[in-house]
This record gives sequence, structure tokens and C-alpha cells, in this order.
Amino acid sequence: MCSVVGVYGNENASKLCFYSLFSMQHRGQEAAGISSSYEAKIKTVKNRGLVTQIFSEDDFKVLKGDMAIGHTRYSTAGDDSILDAQPVFARYGLGEISIVHNGNLVNAKEIREELTKKGAIFQTNMDTENIIHLIAKNYQKNTLKERIIDAVKQIKGAFSLIILSRHKMFAIRDPFGFRPLSLGKIKSGGYIVASETCAFELVGAEFIRDIKPGEMITFEDGEIKSEMIFEPAPKQCIFEYIYFARPDSNVFGKNVYVVRKQMGRELAKELPVDADMVVPVPDSGVAAALGYAEESGIPFEMGIMRNHYVGRTFIEPTQEVRDLKVKMKLSPIVDKIKGKRLVVIDDSIVRGTTSKRIVRMLKEAGAKEVHMRIASPATTGPCYYGVDTPTKEELIASKMSVEEIAKYIEADSLAYLSIDGIIRAIKDKKENYCFACFDGNYPIL
Amino acid sequence: MCSVVGVYGNENASKLCFYSLFSMQHRGQEAAGISSSYEAKIKTVKNRGLVTQIFSEDDFKVLKGDMAIGHTRYSTAGDDSILDAQPVFARYGLGEISIVHNGNLVNAKEIREELTKKGAIFQTNMDTENIIHLIAKNYQKNTLKERIIDAVKQIKGAFSLIILSRHKMFAIRDPFGFRPLSLGKIKSGGYIVASETCAFELVGAEFIRDIKPGEMITFEDGEIKSEMIFEPAPKQCIFEYIYFARPDSNVFGKNVYVVRKQMGRELAKELPVDADMVVPVPDSGVAAALGYAEESGIPFEMGIMRNHYVGRTFIEPTQEVRDLKVKMKLSPIVDKIKGKRLVVIDDSIVRGTTSKRIVRMLKEAGAKEVHMRIASPATTGPCYYGVDTPTKEELIASKMSVEEIAKYIEADSLAYLSIDGIIRAIKDKKENYCFACFDGNYPIL
Amino acid sequence: MCSVVGVYGNENASKLCFYSLFSMQHRGQEAAGISSSYEAKIKTVKNRGLVTQIFSEDDFKVLKGDMAIGHTRYSTAGDDSILDAQPVFARYGLGEISIVHNGNLVNAKEIREELTKKGAIFQTNMDTENIIHLIAKNYQKNTLKERIIDAVKQIKGAFSLIILSRHKMFAIRDPFGFRPLSLGKIKSGGYIVASETCAFELVGAEFIRDIKPGEMITFEDGEIKSEMIFEPAPKQCIFEYIYFARPDSNVFGKNVYVVRKQMGRELAKELPVDADMVVPVPDSGVAAALGYAEESGIPFEMGIMRNHYVGRTFIEPTQEVRDLKVKMKLSPIVDKIKGKRLVVIDDSIVRGTTSKRIVRMLKEAGAKEVHMRIASPATTGPCYYGVDTPTKEELIASKMSVEEIAKYIEADSLAYLSIDGIIRAIKDKKENYCFACFDGNYPIL
Amino acid sequence: MCSVVGVYGNENASKLCFYSLFSMQHRGQEAAGISSSYEAKIKTVKNRGLVTQIFSEDDFKVLKGDMAIGHTRYSTAGDDSILDAQPVFARYGLGEISIVHNGNLVNAKEIREELTKKGAIFQTNMDTENIIHLIAKNYQKNTLKERIIDAVKQIKGAFSLIILSRHKMFAIRDPFGFRPLSLGKIKSGGYIVASETCAFELVGAEFIRDIKPGEMITFEDGEIKSEMIFEPAPKQCIFEYIYFARPDSNVFGKNVYVVRKQMGRELAKELPVDADMVVPVPDSGVAAALGYAEESGIPFEMGIMRNHYVGRTFIEPTQEVRDLKVKMKLSPIVDKIKGKRLVVIDDSIVRGTTSKRIVRMLKEAGAKEVHMRIASPATTGPCYYGVDTPTKEELIASKMSVEEIAKYIEADSLAYLSIDGIIRAIKDKKENYCFACFDGNYPIL
Repeated sequence: MCSVVGVYGNENASKLCFYSLFSMQHRGQEAAGISSSYEAKIKTVKNRGLVTQIFSEDDFKVLKGDMAIGHTRYSTAGDDSILDAQPVFARYGLGEISIVHNGNLVNAKEIREELTKKGAIFQTNMDTENIIHLIAKNYQKNTLKERIIDAVKQIKGAFSLIILSRHKMFAIRDPFGFRPLSLGKIKSGGYIVASETCAFELVGAEFIRDIKPGEMITFEDGEIKSEMIFEPAPKQCIFEYIYFARPDSNVFGKNVYVVRKQMGRELAKELPVDADMVVPVPDSGVAAALGYAEESGIPFEMGIMRNHYVGRTFIEPTQEVRDLKVKMKLSPIVDKIKGKRLVVIDDSIVRGTTSKRIVRMLKEAGAKEVHMRIASPATTGPCYYGVDTPTKEELIASKMSVEEIAKYIEADSLAYLSIDGIIRAIKDKKENYCFACFDGNYPIL
Repeated sequence: MCSVVGVYGNENASKLCFYSLFSMQHRGQEAAGISSSYEAKIKTVKNRGLVTQIFSEDDFKVLKGDMAIGHTRYSTAGDDSILDAQPVFARYGLGEISIVHNGNLVNAKEIREELTKKGAIFQTNMDTENIIHLIAKNYQKNTLKERIIDAVKQIKGAFSLIILSRHKMFAIRDPFGFRPLSLGKIKSGGYIVASETCAFELVGAEFIRDIKPGEMITFEDGEIKSEMIFEPAPKQCIFEYIYFARPDSNVFGKNVYVVRKQMGRELAKELPVDADMVVPVPDSGVAAALGYAEESGIPFEMGIMRNHYVGRTFIEPTQEVRDLKVKMKLSPIVDKIKGKRLVVIDDSIVRGTTSKRIVRMLKEAGAKEVHMRIASPATTGPCYYGVDTPTKEELIASKMSVEEIAKYIEADSLAYLSIDGIIRAIKDKKENYCFACFDGNYPIL
Repeated sequence: MCSVVGVYGNENASKLCFYSLFSMQHRGQEAAGISSSYEAKIKTVKNRGLVTQIFSEDDFKVLKGDMAIGHTRYSTAGDDSILDAQPVFARYGLGEISIVHNGNLVNAKEIREELTKKGAIFQTNMDTENIIHLIAKNYQKNTLKERIIDAVKQIKGAFSLIILSRHKMFAIRDPFGFRPLSLGKIKSGGYIVASETCAFELVGAEFIRDIKPGEMITFEDGEIKSEMIFEPAPKQCIFEYIYFARPDSNVFGKNVYVVRKQMGRELAKELPVDADMVVPVPDSGVAAALGYAEESGIPFEMGIMRNHYVGRTFIEPTQEVRDLKVKMKLSPIVDKIKGKRLVVIDDSIVRGTTSKRIVRMLKEAGAKEVHMRIASPATTGPCYYGVDTPTKEELIASKMSVEEIAKYIEADSLAYLSIDGIIRAIKDKKENYCFACFDGNYPIL
Repeated sequence: MCSVVGVYGNENASKLCFYSLFSMQHRGQEAAGISSSYEAKIKTVKNRGLVTQIFSEDDFKVLKGDMAIGHTRYSTAGDDSILDAQPVFARYGLGEISIVHNGNLVNAKEIREELTKKGAIFQTNMDTENIIHLIAKNYQKNTLKERIIDAVKQIKGAFSLIILSRHKMFAIRDPFGFRPLSLGKIKSGGYIVASETCAFELVGAEFIRDIKPGEMITFEDGEIKSEMIFEPAPKQCIFEYIYFARPDSNVFGKNVYVVRKQMGRELAKELPVDADMVVPVPDSGVAAALGYAEESGIPFEMGIMRNHYVGRTFIEPTQEVRDLKVKMKLSPIVDKIKGKRLVVIDDSIVRGTTSKRIVRMLKEAGAKEVHMRIASPATTGPCYYGVDTPTKEELIASKMSVEEIAKYIEADSLAYLSIDGIIRAIKDKKENYCFACFDGNYPIL
């Protein structure tokens, strides 16, 4: 997860980054930051916390200029240093630079070892620092652009990058296009690049197109210039459709809500069940449940209430905290559920503990039957491209069969949508997407 | 608004109050507090902010004992003093007392004037302080119970009260029963009284019954004793069904979600429209929109996305802040909406500014037609019984006809559910409810 | 302790109160507050913490008007409720009122019992609330002034009071004049009343005179009017000279620094010792040590260094915290002390633990002999007039002889200044002062 | 300014660093941090604020191990980034490293340019980052020790350094010994190195000796090993005696209080004046004033009171803030001063604005004459070795004669101690000290 944004050519560049980050807060609640470039000086404000907590009006007096980049970060295991917020800023041979990165490099460790062996120092745990080093150490090349191209050719993995220098901005998407990155035109002037198009809505921008896998866009002298710096080999993350992206965003060329609803329809076709009502696990299961209900003809009901005064489960750092929060987050609408046979729609099952708790809660509320239908295949492997999944051992589907999981979560039945079902829902070629966490076919390791 | 809770006879009384207040956070985000009674001493912790922000583990070491009461408060115009958080604690002739109050007294000013004329002092702006004064000054009576009964007979208006003394707890609902108040049995021991039954779910309590309009329940010596201290004349607040209460709560004997959905059905019957999809204004319009869609056969779509990283509009203090937040809170799912004729379902229209902004947003997203359908009658008058409505002048329906409002909010059509429609939805007698904000028939002034 | 201030007839009244409270921060670091009166409305801002932490520029936009009162508070045993900050504000029969109080009432409990028996409620633990009640309940009298006079005639003990109403301000000192209260003229306009004259310096005010024991000053219609409402019977707190007041203040007609230095001289006359240097316990022992050195001819050295990054010992709430802080606060200048015979001057000994620690520290630093000389008599009884002394049991001098204390604190010798010595130092009549904590002659109980 | 500390071989290493930093808080109030090494991992906690504000008990659960280093930082012009707190941590070719630095490099810019030209990146503005780079890039050398020696031979300027690796600690003082650095033995086990010996007192350590100019001490395998890595050429900062160091510290082999007092004596000999009393500007002028009084026979009086509820002037960031704080910090004891001829002793004059304000304050308090005597020569040039002096233009003595300054600050007379006077006071050879800010003889540029 994480989100990135860059604004070029608008006098409120940093404020527009702020609003964009606010829109993409669901992609990371641990930390956030913005860098802007003004009179050949880059300033950065970053901290831990939510976007609205970090920035005050005063910060925008510092973050002047018509170019800015921003980032929201979700916590990964272990390291929670303040230093690990982005953008990462540095002074190097050609001046000042600041970078934001969404994704995960698979050769970060090798690069670090190689670089430190030759004298580099690393002050953070972030992959972003690797990229800056690769740019900086390439001192034979005289332009930042050449250096960036050389640098990104050495890194492997998932990277949607935005780079700010004193006078230019660059946006790059890795050849697999693992993570989304879209380009928009701001009505009040200039351009925006962001992880999700939901950022465009708030800042008054129009979607132009997605940055292509392997493409680099250079923002310079008020113009944008595109070039393909990699041979594209699209393997876009299917989980963006399943869970991450906001329903109102368009990612990889399609609207997320529409895709999710269609997944629900496919789920109903593949895995029908005789039941009285379709109930989503809110909020992530709502769109798929609507599709399931429409397709199956079984009435849709918001049978589980979500209390929005607690944060998003998936993002919370430890198992223990999550347990308490699940209990405080979801509650059944007993009058609707009592004596009924339910099809409960969720986006995915990770460890199984949340599902188990939901099933038990519904049974205690009087549900006669609970049939879990998951709008994605069984998650059997971790993600190496920027999604904070647990280890293989913690993924329930890596060690139990569907029947065993059903028993474990105490559901009357359980079924997962097939990869083919997803393909039908997105109406695109399978080879354009990464399904590694379901089928183990990792595009790059 | 506001919520109250009381727990009697459970060793974790204050913690259970905390969890209950968390469940009822939607009834007030401005301030919260808990008092508990232990060894004939009452301790109070209260502050401004959300429930989860106010209380720390240490506070529960102070809030010992098996009796506790709690309160969440929403800000009312003007006064935002820390002193105006509840519970209100006082020492008086019979010892120590602490009170929480949901509602609003219509004769508070008269009581204050009378009391101050005779030498009383008021340190806060809260009606609750009036009630304590009435109890305290009645020194001819030797028992707290007698004094409470005498006191509540002098106050007029809406009051769901919970009173904690050193050894007892009392729960009282005014004869009109304006605000809800329910009684439950905690599985791990003791009783709970709360504004909404959603509080019961989290603390493991079973719903026994509503406290009746005019009833006082005394918790004493491990027992509960009921007596009718007023002739009941039910005028329960219809807005609890329309907007306030959580969908998973049962208030006034019915489940809120079920009632809201039925209101949607009635809305569809009364005010059909030829359209392509039914879209709720989330979250408050969802249940009614589901009902509307089912009744009308027009497909239901979550065509507007809500960003939950901002608080609830209705609760925010000033018009200016609310404007910004609306913009940051709702966004359209363009792909679904474009070129479509929409029926947009909202719970109510207050000033009209939010509706206008929503319509415009949907039109800009490409909606061909926007037909607003409101799951309640036009709000033409303020509430004097505890709902923080604006003045009559600020209520758009007090100065414009439906047609004028439709034009103002730029909708292709606008229609409100009738009072009869509501009656049909709740399947109860009209005279049991207060519709004063719609029809001007104020039960008491 | 505590400090009070009132400013009348200056458009920056609340800001001048703020600066005055800052100057009197040494009289209470637990909480502070200011009330101002503007267009017949009284506004109050108060909170826990230091003066500079509590108030922001925005608060002074609220605290408008040309009349204001303020208070700093030190924590007393047990209760640390936010409610117990002053000023205490109330609405009562004649309008609005706000009061600040320095001192302690000896009949507070009786008044409370009497008042509550007749129906009053108390929301705080502060004596100030008693006074407001007495004013409020006296509804037969039509003017605030009459009511104030009646009220203060019912209270017994120490009270330097400032009362703010919508259009007037009143300053009153109890007939014993236990606590100081001075009147000044502000150069930029209007009057100031404050506990200590050090407040005058910062706000540009000139000392006019002390408010007399038993005097009430009324600030009304731009004028000040004095009247004696009690027969004066001065028993001014000698501890103001010994420890509380700032050296640059004049209290009870004399400069504190000058008096303290003279006490040091008397100490040298009464209790000579053969030694190499005079060392003060900083900061409170400095002036007396200078006097001792001058009189004895023994060189003065700042042999103990004080680290000012921690707060004042005497004010800290619990014994445990204080222990750690003493250790972090004082350190010896080893090179000066090593092998020397020291006369160590301190203002007083309370529990003896601090003295013991100081002696040990000096011995470890190589001092050959440590002779403690205390610039006040042995403290044998608690104060009932506003000084936060511990109970009699905790006062070391209440249970040990001077010789035993010397042994306990491991000093080579120990001696206290006599009451006569103090009298000589202040050059005034003994009967004008309260020595109760030394001789047990409590003026009122 | 700034302070550094390192503790080796004590299981409470990080806590002892904390206490030491607390003792040295006067050397920097802007930020602080601690790194500790445990099981071959270095952890760091650092932040802005005072030492007591930054660290909580939980931090010491993270900062485990028996080796730790710490730093307090004062703000320098312009950059106040959180990143600029120390220790600076990095991973490099040989593992992990963390460094603290007191001083200032004169060739930092050249090193940065050279390093960035060859591909290095700089994420902060701190000289410390240069040093880490020099260590890291020297990958031909296999041991950290060799690399450190090579690195410090490339840097020029003032550096008292402590370096923590996974298993060792190193302490180094530059050949000029500009800044102090002392070695102590902790009674409960292990060693301590700190900027000032006042840190030893609190942690129970005994002074062993100063680290010599040009010396490196290696803490390894429980042992300490000394070697001279530079030819010593002592030029110790005379301002440590004049102002920076705490009076109870011994720096450069002498006690600061004793030296300061002796400077006061020399001042009296060189610059006698016919006056009634000697008054220090507290706290920095106290020791010199005592010396002046003793030598001259003129009585010493604490005629100016200091309010310790505000921080230290010299450290505050901007001129504007300082002005307000001076006014809130010092106040005259009018009764002592009125009609008197004063010798006022201060440590130094920087811009002259504070002195001017003090003179005016004393005159307004009634002083007949004010003779300023400064216990150091006129400061005519900035410091390049770690003292945050203003630019030459801002130093009043760089553009005015003594007579002109006297007139500007409105003193009846003004005189500075000569360099010879200082030499006599410290009883050491002149060539061992840096007087550059007085005489312009900069040892290295």
C-alpha cells in the first residue's frame, strides 16, 4: 500500500497534494509528508499520523512553489521510526531531490549491500533511499534524467515513483505496472499524478490517462513529455480491485466499484446458495454483495453495521489490537438477521480470525445459517510488491483446505471466487494482472 | 442529541460505560464523561473530545465501583466550556450525587431565574445543573428518591435521566418519552440503562424493555424497582428513526434499520419517479434507499462514496467548517452515474446547502437527472427537546416551498415523505410521536 | 499559597493579568485562570499548567474588556480536578460574578454543611465556592456590595479576595491580613491589585499602598473607594518573608530581599559558628546567606549550584517525586567545598529529608564540617491560613529536638533563628504577625 | 554549544545518558537524543524539546544495552528540521553506527561538495553526517577504528565526538581541544565521557581526567585504550569559562565557578570604580560579581532578580522573542538600588540590546549611577567552532568603541576585562586557549 501524488504547475501545488493525500488516506494512515520546490529550494514537512493531523496552515507557508509531491504511508512490521516517513529528501551532486515511492523492491537488500560495501550510508529502512543513492552515485552522467533512467533500470520490483528536483518533476511506473498511477489535468492549471483517481475529484482535476507500465513522464518548462523507458510487461495488482482502491477511483482503466460489483455477480454465478438475504461485511464487501444480490435475486440487506469511529482493520499494526477493534467495529442488525439464512460477502480472508468472529456474532444474533462467499480466490501466499500481507504461515488458506477453513470459521459453507471469475469480471486479459498471492506465480523475485 | 448510560451491579461498571459510550459516539462527539460510585465516594472523569481520546487505562483505576453513569455530548451553539461536559457532580445536603441528562428542558430559564432569585448559583449552562439544584434545595424531604420525584415534576421538556448517588442509581424518562432509554441485563452481572440498545451488544447485555415514558426505575440493594411517576403521554421523537439512532439499535420498540427501510418503501409508493437508479446519500440515506429500490424496482447503487476520515456533518459546530468537510466527505462514482437518471435518497434537508452541493456534484459527474427524495417531511421548525436544529430562519423549508427548494438545490425534482408515510412505516399510532419540527405541534412549550 | 490579581480600567486588562500571573508563577504552578468583564458578560479561561502554557493569543480575543481578575493555584493534597482552578464563575440573582481567592477559610466545612443542609450544591472543593454561595443566597439585599460585606463577615480565616461583577470590581483583605494584597496605579491607565508587588513591575504600575487588613476597595465608575469593613487585627504571615514572596516584592510594607538578608544577619548574631565559608541553599537561602556572611565576616560562596530546568520543590505534589527532583536540582561545587567547614543557610526545614540529602551531598563532595543555620524558627505546626504545609506528624520539628534533627540530617550542628531574631529583622511589632506554625498561637481556628 | 555523552559498560547505559543530558540541558534546549547498542543492533530515540519532555519510561525499554551515547542540541539559524537532531545513525559497510558531535567543522562545505560530486547523498544539515560519510566511503580499510582515524584527519575545526558501533565506543577530541570532553568512572560500573563534569555528579561517576586534545579513546572488550591520533595544539574555548559551562563543572582542568570568581577579582583590579554596591546580572554574572566584590571591598547584593520560569536568553532563536523574554526574566530589587551607585557585572555583551534594557531598568528603579563591568573582553568576531554567535555586523563591539557602547547602553561607564586579566584568572598559558572572538586570531579557518 501507500499512496503518492505529484502536482506540477499550480501555485497551490502543496495544498493540492494535501487534499489528494486526504483522499488517499485509506492507502496508509501511519505517516504522511509533502515536499515542494520553490526558488530552487526543496522544503519538506512530514510526520507520523493522519494527513489532517500532520499539516497546519503554517506548513503551507513553508511549502511554497508550483511543484510538490506527497505520500501517505502504512506501517510495515517492526520499524516505526519517524525517519521512515516519505518524501525522502537529499542533497546530492546535482543539487536537491525529493522522492516518493509506492511499491516494494525485491532487490533492495542486494542494492544496499552493494552500495554500503562501496561506501554508502543508509539512514532509513526505506527502498526510496536506495533509489536516491543510485541516482546520486552515478556522477558520470550530467543530467538528472539520465541518472533516473539508469537508476530505475537497476531496481527490481514494484515502483510507482514521483521525483521532485529543483525545477522538474518525474513520474515513473515499473514495467509490470504493479501499482496504479494516473495522470490528470487540473482545471485551475497544471498537472497531477496520483495513485488513485479519487484524488482528482477533490482538487478539480480531469483524468487524462494512466501512466503506462514502463513509462516515464517528465514535467519540465510547463510541458509534459512521455517516454517508454522499459519494455512494458503488465502484471497489475489484482488486489487493488479486490480491496485497496477506493470504489470511486478508476484504476487500471476501470472503475473499482463497477468491477467489484461484477465480481459479486460472478460469485453468485459460480457459487450459488439457497438463502434469505445477502449481507456484506462493510465497507469492503458492499459492492460485491450488491452484485451478488442482483445476480442471485436474493434480497440485499445491510445486516451488519459498521462503527466508523475506529480505523480500518487491515491497516492496524498488531493482531492484538485488531482483535479489540473488530469487536468495536462491527455489529449485527438483529431484527433483520434473526432466523434467516445469510449469504455473507467479504472481499478476502487473511488469517481467518476476523471471519470467525463475524460468523459467531451473526449466529449469536440468531442467524439460522451463515454462508460465507469471498469475492476473491483463497490468499495462499504473501505479496512482495508492496502489499502488507502476513507471512505464508499466517495465511489460513496456505495450510487449510476450504472445508477446513469453513469449519474453523464456523460457517455453514464457504466458497471463494475463482481467478477465472475475476477475469470475467474485469473483462481483460489474465496475463495483464498479478495473481501471485493466489496462484504463486510471482512475476519477479 | 447526547447519549446517557448507567451500569448497576457489575464490577467493571465504568469500563462497561466506556464501551457503551463508544457505541453511542454518534450521539455526541464534543465531550464525554463517566462517574462511578465506590465506598460512598463518587469520582468523575470528563473532558472534551472523543470517548477513545478522553479515557486512559489509568482513569479506570480511579473510576472504581460497581455503579457508574456516562454521557456523550454534542456541542450546542455558543458555549463550549469544559465545564459543560457531563456527568454533573455535586455535594449537597444528603451527600454526593452525579447526573447525566439527554434532552432539553423548556422551562430551564424560568427555573434558573426562580432559583437564582432565591440565592442559588449556576456554574454551567447545562439543564442538568437545574435538576441538581431542585433536588438539593428540597431539604425538607429526607430521601433522595422523594427529592428526585419532586424535582422532575418541576421540570418540563425532554429528559432521559440517570442519577447516581453513593449507594443507588435512578433512571427516569419524561412523560412524553421524547428521547429513548432502554433497560438491559448484563450477562456477566447487573443491569444497564442506555439511550440506544447498540450499547448492549458491545457489553454483552440483553435487552429487557424500554423504560416507559413517565417511569422511574430505582436500582437499590441489587434489585430494580419500577414505578410510574408521571401519567404517560408518549410523544416520542420521530427524528430518532429518521436520523439519530444507529441502524442496529432498537428504539421505541422497533429496529431503526427496519423502520428506515420501510420509510424508503413508503417514499417510493408516495413519490414514484421514472429513473435508472436509486442512490443514497451515505450513510444516513442507505436504509431508506434500499427500501425505495425494493419497492420501486429501480436498481440500487452506492453511487456516492463517503470518506470516513472526517467526522459527521450534522455534529460539526460552524457552517464554515461544515462546508469544507462536505466537500472532503462525499464523492461520486462517475462511471455509474454518467448519463443516468438518479433518485437520490437523503434522510432530511436542513439548510439546503449540503443538498445543493450534492446535486451539483452529481450533475458535474454526468448525471442526466437528479431527483431528490427525502425520507422525512420538510423540516419547518426547530426542536426544543434536545435536537440541535438551527433556528427557524435557517431552515430552508420554513421560507421556501418544495418547488423553490428544488430550484435552489438545482434538482430536477424534489419530494418529501409525508407524515402519514412515516406512520405507515412505523406501524404505530401517530399520537405516540412528536412531529413538531414538521407540523409545528409542540407537545410542550 | 496562590496568587490573585485584578486590573480595573485598562483596555488590556486581561493581558496585564496574564503578565502579572506570570510574575507570580512562583505562588502556584498547578493551574491558572483569568476572567474578564465586557459588555455585561463575564468570560473565563482557566486550565491546569503554567501560565505560559495555558493562555494563547486567541484567549485574549475572548477575554475582552477593561476589567479582569486572575489566579495561579498550587496543588493541595488529594484533589487535582480541573474544576478546582480559579476564577470561580457563577450566575446568581444579580447577574454574573467571578471570584479569585488567596488564603484558606477555617470555617469552610461548617459553612458548607449549613449551606448544603439548606439546599445548596457544591461542585468544587474550593473555599471560593462558599463565598459565592454566601453572596448569592443573601437575596434580601439588593446590591452586590452589601451582599459581599455580609458574606465576608460570615467567613473566618485568611482571604485576600478580588471579585468581578459585570460593572465593578472589589478587593478585600481579611481583618488579620494573613496574605498580602497591594494596590498600584498603572501608568497606561487604571488600577491593579495583586498579591505581590513584583507583578507591578512587569505591567508598568506604581505601588500606591497595601490594602489594609479589614479593608474593602470598590472599583466603580472609574473611581476607587476604600472602606474598612472589619476592625483590623493584623496577623500577617511571617512565612511570606521567610520563603514565599519573591525577593523583589514588597510585602507588608517591606522589601522581601532586604528582610531576608537582615534575618541572615540576625542568624549570624544569634548563632555564630567557626567556619570557612557561608553557602546558601539556592535560591531561597541566598539573601539570608549574604546577610550571615556580611555579619559574620565569613566569606560567602555559591557552593551549591541549582539546575533551573526543574520546578520548585516546595510546590511539587508528592514526596516521591520530590525526592527525585531534589537530586536533579542541586549539585555542589566540589572544588570550593572540599576540605572546608561550611555554614549552610536554608530558609526552613519541613520534613528534614531534603536537608539530610543536602548535608550528605556536601560531605560526599569533601566538606569537612556542615553547620546548618535556618533563617526561621523550627516549624512545629501546620498552617491553616493558606500555606500547604504537611500535617503535624510529618513536620520533623514536631517530634524531634534540635539535637535530634541535627543528628537525623547528619549535620555537625544545626540552629534555628529565634522569633525575636525575626522581629529584630523586620523591625516591626511582633503582634502584627502570625507565627502560628512556630509557636502554635493560631489567631483563629 | 551542544553537549555529548557516552556511557560504556553499564547496564543502565541509556538511563545514565538521560540523566547526563539533563545535567547538560543548559548546552542546548532545542533537541536531544540517545542511541544504544544491544545485541549488535543500534536503536535511537530523538526528538525536539527538552530532555525531560522527549524521553518516557517506554523509550528505555527500547534503548537497551550497556553502551549508549546522547546529545542535546541548541538551534542554529534557519534550519529546525526534526532530522537535525542527533545522534545520527546509519547503516554502512561494516554494520551500524551512531555518532554525536559537539563543535563545528570549518571545511564541512568542501567535504560535502567533494562527497556529493562523487555520488554521496546528504539528508541533513549536520556536520555529523559528513563524518559518517567519510567513515563509510573508506571501504578499503577493514576496521572501523582505522576508518575513524582516517575520517577525522580529513575534517577541520572543532569536534568532540563520541561514536557508537555495535560492539565498541570511541571518544575523540580535535587537536585544538576547542570543546571540552571529560572521562569518568561510574561507581556502579563502566565509564562515562561527557562534555561537562556536572554530568558525572548525577550518575555517580568520578572524574578521571580530560580527554586530551588530539586523543582518541577506544572502549572495547570492557577496557579503555588511549592513543594520540593528532599532534595536540591546544586552543581551548575561553567562552566555556566565561559563559557556557555550568559553575559546578570542571572544564580544561579547572572549576568554572572558581575561574569565574577569579575573573571578577581581576576585573576589580583592572577596572576599579567608586560605587556603593556590586550587582550581578543573574545567573551568569554571579560568580564574577562575588569576585569583584571581594577584591574591591564593595558590598555584593543580588540587586536584580531572575524569574526562572522562562528559558535561557542566549539560546532563544530570534531577536524578537528574546526581547520579550528579557523583560519577563529580570527585575530590580528597588529598595536596595534606589539612590545607589551600582557596579553591574555581566559575563559578556553581544548585541548590546539586553545591556541597554538592564541599565534602563536599573535607572528607572532609582539607581544613581550604573557602571557596567564585563568579565570578558569585547566580543568583536563570530565563532566558527561551535558557538552560536551572531554575525560580525550584529556584534556591537565590532562597530562601536567602548565609549560608544557605553553611551548606547546608557551606562555611566563601561569596561571590559582584558585578555591578560583572563589569563591571570585561569593561571595558564595564553597559547592554550582560543580568544578568536576577542582578538580575531582564528586557529583554523
